[in-house]
Amino acid sequence: MSEYEKIDAYLEKNLDKSLGELAKLVAQPSVSAQGVGLKECASLVADMLRSRGFTAEIMETEGAPVVFAERRGKSDKTLLFYNHYDVQPPEPLELWDSPPFQPVIRDGKMYGRGISDDKGHIVSRLHAIDAILAADGDLPCNVKFIIEGEEETSSVHLNDFIRANTEKLKADACVWEFGSVDHRDVPIQYLGLRGICYVELSVESLDTDVHSGLGGSIFPNAAWRLVWALSTLKGPDERIRIPGFYDDVKPPTARDRELMEALPEVADEYKQRYGVRQFIKGLTGGVDLRVEEVFTPTCTLCGLTSGYQGPGSKTVLPAKASAKVDFRLVPDQKPEDILMKLRKHLDAEGFEDVRIEFLGGEPAARTEPDDPFVGIVVKAAEEVYEEAMQLVPMIGGSGPNYPFVHDLGLPVATAGLSYPDTRAHAPNENIRIDLYLKHARHMARVIREFAK
Amino acid sequence: MSEYEKIDAYLEKNLDKSLGELAKLVAQPSVSAQGVGLKECASLVADMLRSRGFTAEIMETEGAPVVFAERRGKSDKTLLFYNHYDVQPPEPLELWDSPPFQPVIRDGKMYGRGISDDKGHIVSRLHAIDAILAADGDLPCNVKFIIEGEEETSSVHLNDFIRANTEKLKADACVWEFGSVDHRDVPIQYLGLRGICYVELSVESLDTDVHSGLGGSIFPNAAWRLVWALSTLKGPDERIRIPGFYDDVKPPTARDRELMEALPEVADEYKQRYGVRQFIKGLTGGVDLRVEEVFTPTCTLCGLTSGYQGPGSKTVLPAKASAKVDFRLVPDQKPEDILMKLRKHLDAEGFEDVRIEFLGGEPAARTEPDDPFVGIVVKAAEEVYEEAMQLVPMIGGSGPNYPFVHDLGLPVATAGLSYPDTRAHAPNENIRIDLYLKHARHMARVIREFAK
Repeated sequence: MSEYEKIDAYLEKNLDKSLGELAKLVAQPSVSAQGVGLKECASLVADMLRSRGFTAEIMETEGAPVVFAERRGKSDKTLLFYNHYDVQPPEPLELWDSPPFQPVIRDGKMYGRGISDDKGHIVSRLHAIDAILAADGDLPCNVKFIIEGEEETSSVHLNDFIRANTEKLKADACVWEFGSVDHRDVPIQYLGLRGICYVELSVESLDTDVHSGLGGSIFPNAAWRLVWALSTLKGPDERIRIPGFYDDVKPPTARDRELMEALPEVADEYKQRYGVRQFIKGLTGGVDLRVEEVFTPTCTLCGLTSGYQGPGSKTVLPAKASAKVDFRLVPDQKPEDILMKLRKHLDAEGFEDVRIEFLGGEPAARTEPDDPFVGIVVKAAEEVYEEAMQLVPMIGGSGPNYPFVHDLGLPVATAGLSYPDTRAHAPNENIRIDLYLKHARHMARVIREFAK
Repeated sequence: MSEYEKIDAYLEKNLDKSLGELAKLVAQPSVSAQGVGLKECASLVADMLRSRGFTAEIMETEGAPVVFAERRGKSDKTLLFYNHYDVQPPEPLELWDSPPFQPVIRDGKMYGRGISDDKGHIVSRLHAIDAILAADGDLPCNVKFIIEGEEETSSVHLNDFIRANTEKLKADACVWEFGSVDHRDVPIQYLGLRGICYVELSVESLDTDVHSGLGGSIFPNAAWRLVWALSTLKGPDERIRIPGFYDDVKPPTARDRELMEALPEVADEYKQRYGVRQFIKGLTGGVDLRVEEVFTPTCTLCGLTSGYQGPGSKTVLPAKASAKVDFRLVPDQKPEDILMKLRKHLDAEGFEDVRIEFLGGEPAARTEPDDPFVGIVVKAAEEVYEEAMQLVPMIGGSGPNYPFVHDLGLPVATAGLSYPDTRAHAPNENIRIDLYLKHARHMARVIREFAK
């Protein structure tokens, strides 16, 4: 495609300038979990957008502000970019080779907290827009950005924000905040995220812990109540026993299975990396393992706490016990529905004393693998990466894609500059500069091809 | 009994001197949990015994030394006193009104760490011996003392010590280290202690914690494995499901039940003090509650720990989980047998992956309520306390009485100076000086009457 020669040359020529802008953004701490620097960072991001001719608003929410920006283009079509300006806490600081908020380049990589997740994506996309504006003088379509500040703390106010601003956010397609290449440098297209319903279950059976010699035979024990309640949720057969839990589960289609078939084997990697001696449900590997991994809902115990937990023995009967429980949901399960069924189930099993605290949730959402917009993103990647993009119909994690897919009605495609050693959420978070440039080239193509 | 006039007068006259000796013993820290001052304290105790004409040996064990002392008397009968010179840690120091190792007298009470548990008992008993020696010039029978230094850390080496020294410890009866009056100042005779088998159950399902979005559908979860294993041990019906668990349980006799009938009601006190809203097993109070409390074995969850336990949510699949489990045993259950049955049960239920760590145990032991030695102790108390001693055939806690009852073949009776506000193991541990004197008067009578 010779039509991209000029754009590619611009991107290459102005790469250092773009990285300089990225360094400035990374140097502004914006840790949502600690409430550090969020307003300052939102303001910086808005300025960066305005300098490209975008109208940018800093919109308040009950949490961190959302930056909304828009620039009109030649066609009526609108492409929406979803990003976030907040980052994970930088701790533990002693494990960084250079200070997390003083970005540096070493060996073709640039280091800093949030540089991969998600500031690199923001600035690389702006770099692509600069190249188009330099080449064409205008954008080929309308481009909108929604850049939130609470992605690292579960995007708690994003759903409400989107529902309150559907008109403003109206678009025809959405590019997701992240994307990556795999260990072979093959770019990956993630087309769905599972939902989640995260709860804390707790029991308080007494006002105070009691000596176990005294109460063991006659007092209710919070830890036992909790264990018994939990054991009604799921047994060793791994089947979740809450009545109606599976009612809304949509099984994967033949096309989903076909796409999962094409993905590399994971069994050996999992065994080596995590020390899995045996997968559950009799799984051994292959496509069955990969399909099960992402297309089934879960009930995961994430934590248990009660009574004495130190070394040796303490003869105590605990007054309190609690568990963190994470239900991963698949289409079309809904967190509110699962919550209601969970309460009903516990009551029916005689566990009215088990309190449920809802700690967050969102439904699963997917984009069809054969959606035309996905086709555009995949085709554009092929030229840049010189590899066919690998379609992954669903991944096991969760994210706030439901309101984009279902409230805004958009196809959502992923594209990005992450790679297996990018260390998002960890010390020495980094990007590869070659992938930064490739992402900008990819984005320039996506904007242009989408507009056609 | 006019024969005790001289002795009682001596005890009263020399009370301050005895309290001075007690102060010296309390001022010597001897914290077994922290390994502080044990040898020094053993040496001090041995010197105190030698000054009464006892031969005293400091005998090494794998842990703290045991002080063994003996003085021959007129008759061939031998009375053995079991005591301990170690004390609980004094922390939290800020809650003491005076320093724990600087004993002081305030309002008829004497304060200090270990003054009730168990140093007051030691010195009060020596005071009684002094009085007999002053009155009679000799002891009426042989008196032996075994004073260990690990009672506050589960007497881990006592069983072996006793078994290795049965000849040396040979006696006809034993006075236990503690005893108390209740809230009405009625002296209590505790005739049995439950046994215990304390274990930690643990599971390791992976080498490392994993993101729950990744592993939830396919990886084994240590917390779930633990919950399922625990739920096979006991269900909401409170029946322990380990095959053979109840095989050796001896039910209480009609005499036991008769004695339990005579004890005060506890239901309301438990409800108020511990916030019990409902007792388990449908119990509501009365003798049924009191019998159940002490004559049934238990399986108490003392602690649970796994994964994330902080505020809010963390989406993690835990690699490790563990539980502390305390089985209280009744005659004739044995900890080794319970341990073996537990392992067999877990294996049979498919939980070979659940590790069992044995953290300590001892069987239950009892002395017959109608044993003649118990009769002597009860009768002697009646004169001193001007109240009939209340016989409690069994209590819910555990202690090292099994080797005394079964290896040495002794009737064991309790007698002591504790009272409900004595604060053993807590800040401001104290004794009432009137009860200190009464205990010495009681002990002088027990030694003399036993010798007849």
